[in-house]
Amino acid sequence: MSDYAQLLEVALEEARAGRAEGGIPIGAALFAGDGTLLGRGHNRRVQDDDPSVHGETDAFRNAGRRRSYRDTIMVTTLSPCWYCSGLVRQFGIGTVVIGESRTFAGGADWLREAGVTVVDLDPSECFDLLQAFIAEHPEIWDEDIGE
Amino acid sequence: MSDYAQLLEVALEEARAGRAEGGIPIGAALFAGDGTLLGRGHNRRVQDDDPSVHGETDAFRNAGRRRSYRDTIMVTTLSPCWYCSGLVRQFGIGTVVIGESRTFAGGADWLREAGVTVVDLDPSECFDLLQAFIAEHPEIWDEDIGE
Repeated sequence: MSDYAQLLEVALEEARAGRAEGGIPIGAALFAGDGTLLGRGHNRRVQDDDPSVHGETDAFRNAGRRRSYRDTIMVTTLSPCWYCSGLVRQFGIGTVVIGESRTFAGGADWLREAGVTVVDLDPSECFDLLQAFIAEHPEIWDEDIGE
Repeated sequence: MSDYAQLLEVALEEARAGRAEGGIPIGAALFAGDGTLLGRGHNRRVQDDDPSVHGETDAFRNAGRRRSYRDTIMVTTLSPCWYCSGLVRQFGIGTVVIGESRTFAGGADWLREAGVTVVDLDPSECFDLLQAFIAEHPEIWDEDIGE
């Protein structure tokens, strides 16, 4: 088993980078089962005016094409929304490591029911980073989750 | 009500463009409720080596940022996979028009249960275009749906 807390640190670096760019501070990274980094990314709705770039979809894209995702680990600072949960399920990503699910529960339970291993680490920084952004820009957050 | 068959023609043009480029022939387009085109696109896994670009996600991206999707119509030549069904559900897209669901059932029933209006038109060209591609490149198709 990889050290999930260490993998989450990469997603957190992405979230911090998003914050520094003025964007929604959610980051993600896709790893091979042995902990090798395959791709990393962060939400860029604000930076690129692109609603399709969530942290998870950005990390997935940056990992390039793969024949199988069964042994991969998607690490994200926030529980994946339906869009990103659907990505995990469609491509058969075997494990999801979540930074926090207090702000947004997302599809974590749906993924567990589909046989995905879901680990919720909940370090305070993931929650604090996003909550600070939402307090400043509630309308951008609502837009990002379609509410 | 918009003329769904006419809207599907735009998605079909995208699918044909994908085929002409050597890619997976699946196209999509996002429309406002009155039939105004917001964005269109097609699968570009092969062309861009980008596994994140399905027809629906490409059309969604090309439509740019929006505050609400409730009145929008996502038109796609193939029933949306979990990834694209999750997109529809997360952003509250109200209607999905499907070209065919014989090759791949996708999340159509799941979306119906979540209150999305799903219309399956099933003109033969959508099915024939994709089946011809799958016969030539079964391994690319399996890769695209994570199997």
